[in-house]
Amino acid sequence: MGYTFKAIGTVRTDHQEAMPRHWSCSDVAGQIVLEASYARCLTGIAVGERIIVLFVFDRSPPFTPDHELQTPPHREHRTGVLSTCSPVRPNPIGLSVVEVTAIDGATVSVLGLDMLDGTPVLDIKPWVTGPARDAGEQS
Amino acid sequence: MGYTFKAIGTVRTDHQEAMPRHWSCSDVAGQIVLEASYARCLTGIAVGERIIVLFVFDRSPPFTPDHELQTPPHREHRTGVLSTCSPVRPNPIGLSVVEVTAIDGATVSVLGLDMLDGTPVLDIKPWVTGPARDAGEQS
Repeated sequence: MGYTFKAIGTVRTDHQEAMPRHWSCSDVAGQIVLEASYARCLTGIAVGERIIVLFVFDRSPPFTPDHELQTPPHREHRTGVLSTCSPVRPNPIGLSVVEVTAIDGATVSVLGLDMLDGTPVLDIKPWVTGPARDAGEQS
Repeated sequence: MGYTFKAIGTVRTDHQEAMPRHWSCSDVAGQIVLEASYARCLTGIAVGERIIVLFVFDRSPPFTPDHELQTPPHREHRTGVLSTCSPVRPNPIGLSVVEVTAIDGATVSVLGLDMLDGTPVLDIKPWVTGPARDAGEQS
């Protein structure tokens, strides 16, 4: 059974060099440009916060059994795709955590991109790191 | 433009009471039961680790403009849906972080569920919490 989702926006960045392999080692700047109708949905997101961005790996090849085990660029051995952040996975959904530097209407400026310019965005979520009993705050 | 994804598995839990509103305050046990063909994709995931589970809020009502601002159960004021973990969002994709307690074939036993029994699973990813320059380890 299939589940169909639509892009609510697009990643924009002028970064011309190779993108960092992962958000956790990226300081690339850019914007999450949502469709204008979603501007109000951003209420409550503050500059300085981290947000989760779910997106589509829209330029990945189709997943085949050959991709079940992969060797990430920073590792020496093959491991299961679901233990990695590989863009070639059963469902090509990506997740990055980026820092909000500005919000203007439906455009969120961020630091820490590892997505290519033009990447379709599916969702933005708050970044919650730990059990409520430890963190004392969540959304 | 739509992007169609397929369930790679299903959440199973015997928990009969109301589910916790969020994984960060849940100690509910259950299983992520993947289709058998994905067993090898789990290679490298270890007991004791936390994993991210992306899933479909398959029992949520359709998103309408009335849902742009919502009041989370633990808050007093309305805020933008993208600043919350609400199950009623532009694309009904959920994210939970759960702790792996066992792996048997294509079944991952976990603690910390906040999904209902039968919830379709789209992806499993490693839980990476911080910049590589701080954490020193990632996938």
